Amino acid sequence: MKAVRLHEFHSQPVIDDVPEPAITGPLDVIVKIGGAGVCRTDLHIIQGQWDERMQTPLPYILGHENAGWVHEVGSAVTNVAVGDTVILHPTPTCGLCRACRAGDDMHCVASSFPGLSTDGGMAEYLRTSARACVKLDPATQPADVAALADAGITAYHAVRKAIPLLYPGTTAVVIGAGGLGHIGVQCLAALTATTIVVVDRNPDALKLAEQLGATHTVVADGGQRAAVADLTGGQGAEVVFDFVAEQGAEMDGWEMTRPGGSYFVIGYGGELRIPTLDIISTERNVIGNIVGTYNDLAELMSLAQAGRVTLHTRTYPLSAATDAFADLDAGRVRGRAILVP
Amino acid sequence: MKAVRLHEFHSQPVIDDVPEPAITGPLDVIVKIGGAGVCRTDLHIIQGQWDERMQTPLPYILGHENAGWVHEVGSAVTNVAVGDTVILHPTPTCGLCRACRAGDDMHCVASSFPGLSTDGGMAEYLRTSARACVKLDPATQPADVAALADAGITAYHAVRKAIPLLYPGTTAVVIGAGGLGHIGVQCLAALTATTIVVVDRNPDALKLAEQLGATHTVVADGGQRAAVADLTGGQGAEVVFDFVAEQGAEMDGWEMTRPGGSYFVIGYGGELRIPTLDIISTERNVIGNIVGTYNDLAELMSLAQAGRVTLHTRTYPLSAATDAFADLDAGRVRGRAILVP
Amino acid sequence: MKAVRLHEFHSQPVIDDVPEPAITGPLDVIVKIGGAGVCRTDLHIIQGQWDERMQTPLPYILGHENAGWVHEVGSAVTNVAVGDTVILHPTPTCGLCRACRAGDDMHCVASSFPGLSTDGGMAEYLRTSARACVKLDPATQPADVAALADAGITAYHAVRKAIPLLYPGTTAVVIGAGGLGHIGVQCLAALTATTIVVVDRNPDALKLAEQLGATHTVVADGGQRAAVADLTGGQGAEVVFDFVAEQGAEMDGWEMTRPGGSYFVIGYGGELRIPTLDIISTERNVIGNIVGTYNDLAELMSLAQAGRVTLHTRTYPLSAATDAFADLDAGRVRGRAILVP
Amino acid sequence: MKAVRLHEFHSQPVIDDVPEPAITGPLDVIVKIGGAGVCRTDLHIIQGQWDERMQTPLPYILGHENAGWVHEVGSAVTNVAVGDTVILHPTPTCGLCRACRAGDDMHCVASSFPGLSTDGGMAEYLRTSARACVKLDPATQPADVAALADAGITAYHAVRKAIPLLYPGTTAVVIGAGGLGHIGVQCLAALTATTIVVVDRNPDALKLAEQLGATHTVVADGGQRAAVADLTGGQGAEVVFDFVAEQGAEMDGWEMTRPGGSYFVIGYGGELRIPTLDIISTERNVIGNIVGTYNDLAELMSLAQAGRVTLHTRTYPLSAATDAFADLDAGRVRGRAILVP
Repeated sequence: MKAVRLHEFHSQPVIDDVPEPAITGPLDVIVKIGGAGVCRTDLHIIQGQWDERMQTPLPYILGHENAGWVHEVGSAVTNVAVGDTVILHPTPTCGLCRACRAGDDMHCVASSFPGLSTDGGMAEYLRTSARACVKLDPATQPADVAALADAGITAYHAVRKAIPLLYPGTTAVVIGAGGLGHIGVQCLAALTATTIVVVDRNPDALKLAEQLGATHTVVADGGQRAAVADLTGGQGAEVVFDFVAEQGAEMDGWEMTRPGGSYFVIGYGGELRIPTLDIISTERNVIGNIVGTYNDLAELMSLAQAGRVTLHTRTYPLSAATDAFADLDAGRVRGRAILVP
Repeated sequence: MKAVRLHEFHSQPVIDDVPEPAITGPLDVIVKIGGAGVCRTDLHIIQGQWDERMQTPLPYILGHENAGWVHEVGSAVTNVAVGDTVILHPTPTCGLCRACRAGDDMHCVASSFPGLSTDGGMAEYLRTSARACVKLDPATQPADVAALADAGITAYHAVRKAIPLLYPGTTAVVIGAGGLGHIGVQCLAALTATTIVVVDRNPDALKLAEQLGATHTVVADGGQRAAVADLTGGQGAEVVFDFVAEQGAEMDGWEMTRPGGSYFVIGYGGELRIPTLDIISTERNVIGNIVGTYNDLAELMSLAQAGRVTLHTRTYPLSAATDAFADLDAGRVRGRAILVP
Repeated sequence: MKAVRLHEFHSQPVIDDVPEPAITGPLDVIVKIGGAGVCRTDLHIIQGQWDERMQTPLPYILGHENAGWVHEVGSAVTNVAVGDTVILHPTPTCGLCRACRAGDDMHCVASSFPGLSTDGGMAEYLRTSARACVKLDPATQPADVAALADAGITAYHAVRKAIPLLYPGTTAVVIGAGGLGHIGVQCLAALTATTIVVVDRNPDALKLAEQLGATHTVVADGGQRAAVADLTGGQGAEVVFDFVAEQGAEMDGWEMTRPGGSYFVIGYGGELRIPTLDIISTERNVIGNIVGTYNDLAELMSLAQAGRVTLHTRTYPLSAATDAFADLDAGRVRGRAILVP
Repeated sequence: MKAVRLHEFHSQPVIDDVPEPAITGPLDVIVKIGGAGVCRTDLHIIQGQWDERMQTPLPYILGHENAGWVHEVGSAVTNVAVGDTVILHPTPTCGLCRACRAGDDMHCVASSFPGLSTDGGMAEYLRTSARACVKLDPATQPADVAALADAGITAYHAVRKAIPLLYPGTTAVVIGAGGLGHIGVQCLAALTATTIVVVDRNPDALKLAEQLGATHTVVADGGQRAAVADLTGGQGAEVVFDFVAEQGAEMDGWEMTRPGGSYFVIGYGGELRIPTLDIISTERNVIGNIVGTYNDLAELMSLAQAGRVTLHTRTYPLSAATDAFADLDAGRVRGRAILVP
């Protein structure tokens, strides 16, 4: 089959011909990919940012945001059948460790992460596990929803954690209205009545954010901290969601957070530098966020089905993967780029 | 009256003769001080660390950890009467803002902070407000409990916030077993069944921690990160309480926190430097902590009355305030130094 | 002044001429009433249902749902001034007890309840306290918002408590789409993405509920339990809000609650009879609900100001109070009846 | 093998010779029973109280509280091996439904309940699933801990849910200091600093409760409501844990609950009758409780291993099962009766 493989860091992935994956365990599921999202994390992987942490042997297939149809199942699989339309939780988990038993999938002690720690879904077929499959209405087009499998679940997970902090009268700042951020804005609008302030460098992204539920938008042209201060009576926001967290956004995000508030880090690439006196004298928090749980994904699919979250996507054939990477890197993608095999 | 006043930064406070405070509003309360705790924050104030934030005009009276007896009350005070034994919440609050109405006293938009923003309690008398007074059993000696008014409430507040994270089978690390830390250890032992690991440079402090409920102690001699890793199966602790947060403890604290865990900052003076990738790939949190609420103080007094929290204190006459500062600075105080007018 | 006073139980209140209330304490506030809501509780009071609990000496002025303009203030009042437009929290509280200090106003150990325990607002003037006043935009008409002071805050309080239970994919049942229920439906739509099923005997009430955000409506004609079962895959709803809780609705509500779910009681008048085996074998909860906190009211006003909650009201002159009572009793009021002095 | 089977309701179970259970699925585990607890629920089953709900065909083997050693495993079992010492979560679950994915095992849509819905553990061998096994230190004697598998987990689950309500200064009432209650008292003492008031008819049970951590004990001789009122300033307790919930205890429990408090139902057999006015005017809750989660059991084993929870048991040979039933019914068992095959 065709697959987008990374052969070395700092160099573009290559479309290779590789063998199709096969069932190796009783709970394995082979999925025929209908859509695989292209994520800023893919750019970070290519740059080697994840190598030390993951140490995945090269070459391997990229793609951690996948949806498609069940193609083959292991002998003990009971929850899906061949032909089912599915979206895939990004990390197949063991189901038996403390974290799995607490519904905290992302902290499973024995999970894999296709596309980061093993072969991913920028290919015709992907091997995952029964536990990763969320069954969808057969009418759903996988390419239409694939971006919910990682961008969506990550944005949803962060917003869901923040709901108790965002009662009426509060303000939430969203930094970055791209692949994740444009979903985050919709989740906030669906699940809270908070005032939503969206900050982005790109006026088009802000225009989209407005259509999706932003109360106010701010161009990140250097005056963004002052603008947020103006919009919040000088206090800052109860919650700041930072979908960028690099190139200075991370310190913006911290500074835009009001006393007693929480700064949610979702993007990455930069470095936070905070005097501990600033933390304790204001009782502000920095909240880490990572993908989301299986139930997060199921809940998000329920929002999507109700039309409360819609994706803005642009599809590319699998063979045009490098174009998609280049467009994302250059800021030319509104919403999410999706590869279709 | 005699009072310990700071005249300039980087120089020792002076025992001055100053006028007694007087009632100026209907809810004012004048307290005859029975004990005023000496806190590392006093050293930080002398060093000017709080000046930019507070901008309190010099000279003023130090002392933000106070207990005593009600000496005089304003016309509208109903909750305490002259002669009552009281411990004082450190920040008299307005009672009318959103934060006060949510029980979140420390974020009152109109509070004062005697000893930091106005005259404090290292003196014979202090002016505070009715809302700051917690009435005590008349048999209580103020000097015995004064340290609960700031060291105690701060440690208690942090521990209380962490209780849901510290179910049986978890580990909590306590960095620093001094004035706050030795109370934190007792609160953990009283309110959770977590495994308590205490880290300190000083073997005597560790010995005290063991008597107060520590499960394990670790000398901070350079091998503390490895020791905590060993005690937690290489994973780190679910919660790290950092009562130091300077001179490298802050990075120790972050590194000792396991994936999905929370690093509680309580001490200060240092600077955190964390790549945002480290935050999101592990979903760790940094939790700010500041004093505590009025109800926190009331709950802590209930623990103290039941003998679940006992203070280790050393009293000094008010006139020996500079000795107390010097002893604290040199690490010669086990538990808390208390000035008695 | 004119006032609607109850002279004896089971008999209609009377419009009396009574002296205006006067300032008696430093925190008192006299409010010129702009609107006073008529509540089913007023009917219950007239029937004597609250007598045993409240033992308020007759005659007294009814009206526990009030808004207006500040007319006079006590000497220590700082948060409102004469002329301010205000809506009133129903229970002036002490601000000093554990409950008040936790933001849990309704459990204040020293509150009063004008209209139930003392003279209420169906009059030209009402005496309340500074702590009960929520300041409004001067452009607000008190009669337009008065119903938020009790019906609104009560519905909001219950919905807010339930938010964590109502993630996407869940179902909430609302029994009773009258004065409280029609606000509850709007709060649910504003604060959650749950599926909202509204049950009422009255087709007009259901029509209104649909316009306000109900996903499904069910006529309570005897088949309501089966209808809810059908809409929930036979499982029942995660949360049932019972704004009626009498005449059988209370057992309907319990039966419509799915295993692990919660039955929120807000209305009253009936009696629950539940075998403890039913409770433990399904782990269902019965959740009590009472008015709401000051911050609840402030949050609700923020929703109202944003147009997310709109009231359906019908005004009557104060002199027509008995008509309003009669209309409410006969089910002729859509939304809320408001007396305007 | 020998097994204790129920042949008809209202008649004693019989010791039968039956075939050993066999592996039928890849995730099955056969456990050689080391201890099977005797529970009041067994008496209720014999009385037919669970028949309508469970409709389990007779005869079947009783015993839902089991520990032992792994005897045989299915082909896909990875978490335990033959010879492992294990305690068994009472309900083998599917691991794939919403509830399982949320860590809420007891609400699994496809679980079984050996001893209630299928053959249980009062036998030499039991068939369960890999997901139900909690691995123990090999030195543990199953008969010593078996009672934690149901009595323990149920008491722990209820106490754990109540922790946020039981801050210092509160009071918890425990009704019934028997098999579940004597564990509940220990969990409360280990996990909170609340004042623990234990109510029981039996003075010996109260004596045991005192040794295990009760602050006060009350003989249930008719004056128990008044006694609890006296101990709580006339207010009642923040939380009442009712391990009896029949023969009047259920109304005692409700009445002993203070305004804003919660009545936790754990026992069963009686009927609650509460006017909805009582619920809303005090904002009290009735909280259902059912067994507990897998993680609850793991946490409880951690408490047990630390010596914070110790069981009071009396062992009987499997052949003396009817003696054990009779002793329990007659109130002659302190703590828990355990059958040892």
